[in-house]
Amino acid sequence: MTDRSQSTDPKPYYEAHVFVCTNDRGEGAKRPSCARRGSEKLRDYMKAQARAGGLANVRINASGCLDRCELGCTIVIYPEGVWYHYDTRADLDEIIETHLKQGKRVERLMLTTEQEELRPEQMPVAAE
Amino acid sequence: MTDRSQSTDPKPYYEAHVFVCTNDRGEGAKRPSCARRGSEKLRDYMKAQARAGGLANVRINASGCLDRCELGCTIVIYPEGVWYHYDTRADLDEIIETHLKQGKRVERLMLTTEQEELRPEQMPVAAE
Repeated sequence: MTDRSQSTDPKPYYEAHVFVCTNDRGEGAKRPSCARRGSEKLRDYMKAQARAGGLANVRINASGCLDRCELGCTIVIYPEGVWYHYDTRADLDEIIETHLKQGKRVERLMLTTEQEELRPEQMPVAAE
Repeated sequence: MTDRSQSTDPKPYYEAHVFVCTNDRGEGAKRPSCARRGSEKLRDYMKAQARAGGLANVRINASGCLDRCELGCTIVIYPEGVWYHYDTRADLDEIIETHLKQGKRVERLMLTTEQEELRPEQMPVAAE
């Protein structure tokens, strides 16, 4: 049940429904885009890891632009509506283990509602 | 708040977040796909109509395969997790007006959790 739910609504089809932005604005766009940061392959990785981890009723979907481009790569997990920034496979492993399996939160990677830029601890490590 | 929420979670970023399946399995696939039923253009229509209708904090996203292909075209609306079948612009108009604006439900088009095929009233009118 959510604030927007009605008592007669069907029970959830997926226990957790994850949407991974894979939008690509193309080269030279004014705003960054998740696909340019590798989100398509990272989404494939997350999907495979969730399946390998036995998360049977969890769906990992690609989505169009989630419109928080400056905070990408981004995902959102419903029905709880929790947003994360991630950069690496290790970040996704942590989200799978801590959020999806344990029902907790990865505070370091979570986005707040008003957040407009990454916090220092969320900044990607510069490529060598 | 949902059953999966925590009291410290940020408030929702979008009031309603709609995902419209635009998956295309290609010709001759064993399962149907929403894009082959026109979902890409219908999603563009829904996005434009929601905007024209002043739904400022509602996001209409395209998504990958929602895996309820036999019930397509399909959408899911979060955080409430309500699923709909639709065929036409008129169906989407009704979902926008009744669900997104009024917070009610379009019973005729709603999918139940266990549903595996369309109900008679949901069957598309045959093309002439």
